[in-house]
Amino acid sequence: MSRPQTPTEPQTACFEAGIKFGSLYHQFAGTPVSPASADSLERAMAESIENQPHCVGVSVAIDTDELEAELSDSPASYTELTGRFLDVEIEIEYEGTLVTATMQMEDGYPLMRVTDVATRE
Amino acid sequence: MSRPQTPTEPQTACFEAGIKFGSLYHQFAGTPVSPASADSLERAMAESIENQPHCVGVSVAIDTDELEAELSDSPASYTELTGRFLDVEIEIEYEGTLVTATMQMEDGYPLMRVTDVATRE
Amino acid sequence: MSRPQTPTEPQTACFEAGIKFGSLYHQFAGTPVSPASADSLERAMAESIENQPHCVGVSVAIDTDELEAELSDSPASYTELTGRFLDVEIEIEYEGTLVTATMQMEDGYPLMRVTDVATRE
Amino acid sequence: MSRPQTPTEPQTACFEAGIKFGSLYHQFAGTPVSPASADSLERAMAESIENQPHCVGVSVAIDTDELEAELSDSPASYTELTGRFLDVEIEIEYEGTLVTATMQMEDGYPLMRVTDVATRE
Repeated sequence: MSRPQTPTEPQTACFEAGIKFGSLYHQFAGTPVSPASADSLERAMAESIENQPHCVGVSVAIDTDELEAELSDSPASYTELTGRFLDVEIEIEYEGTLVTATMQMEDGYPLMRVTDVATRE
Repeated sequence: MSRPQTPTEPQTACFEAGIKFGSLYHQFAGTPVSPASADSLERAMAESIENQPHCVGVSVAIDTDELEAELSDSPASYTELTGRFLDVEIEIEYEGTLVTATMQMEDGYPLMRVTDVATRE
Repeated sequence: MSRPQTPTEPQTACFEAGIKFGSLYHQFAGTPVSPASADSLERAMAESIENQPHCVGVSVAIDTDELEAELSDSPASYTELTGRFLDVEIEIEYEGTLVTATMQMEDGYPLMRVTDVATRE
Repeated sequence: MSRPQTPTEPQTACFEAGIKFGSLYHQFAGTPVSPASADSLERAMAESIENQPHCVGVSVAIDTDELEAELSDSPASYTELTGRFLDVEIEIEYEGTLVTATMQMEDGYPLMRVTDVATRE
């Protein structure tokens, strides 16, 4: 391996983006959710994570069609929030670097990834 | 001990009330919260727990004065949700029994308790 | 309804049992788990909930056969803890009442219930 | 800003490290913990997060001296896990980059940061 380096500012910005995704997912996964309560949960998730340092934007969409599809096969009127129902975008700004990262379903799995890294010139 | 009995309906109603308090607290404790995001979190907490079986009402108040007092001593602009900031009332109806239970600060500790058990006559 | 009453000691014991189930479930649901890490998670779940007031025993079993069955259909090597994998028994003692409650799968759903209420004579 | 770029492999490695810290913290914050149950919780936290992709090592230490100090001022025999009690190190390996990141108290706040980024030559 190369000699270990301290992180660059863009690397730290990506680390901060990761913290927000892990926080959002593991704070809220398991929350009881129904089509009727999805709106308030989306808003609380976005506003709570926006409190975290360097976080300039969070959008959370809970897929109510997917919720309804799951509940139509079930005697229950609600389920537990999990990645299958979530579409999230988070923007981080750290020392002149803007990072955009998303969580979306891909091949049946919720995938978190950095989509863009831009640096102020 | 007496011979073990299966629970009465009012006992089951109290068990159900306890489930809702444990769920609400351990689902949402640790959520990043500020005075500006308290409203959306209150609403999401109430609406998510209302999804659970036999739950006929949930009110959640986050004490923003207490939040502001904590943040005034701190360089941070948010904190983590904990019992110190919460005042909760939950109503359960199970097979003709109505249970009201609360979580409030008492002597410096968040105390969960059943306040009333009423039975349909 | 009858005039509301304060709860009896057995009713409070059942409320306390419910708190422990809600706490255990919503604290740990969503935890990454594999057959190899199930043992340490079982033990931590039991020991953490045993800290709570009036809790005299907690046993937690994570169904590793069910975990392996789920993972055999998946490219992933772990999943998220949910009720489908859990078998839990909790004993509460409160002012002379011993309550035993369980969480087990029934008809495809994790069911929490009080199985026995015994009173010291 | 510069034209947005897709992330480099070291940036993605840092994003992955951040996910693990956010996950660990928000999954386990709020867990009831005492000096006697700290060992099992440390082990479960480490083993659960090691399940996550690209995670090659997790060490978790819960500061039992700090726990005992808090409990000595309190009628309670346990408290809720929070950053004040935690010292965590996580190692990520992603496509030839090894990232080491830590969470430790600094000036009264739990600080998560990348300490080293090394690239296979």
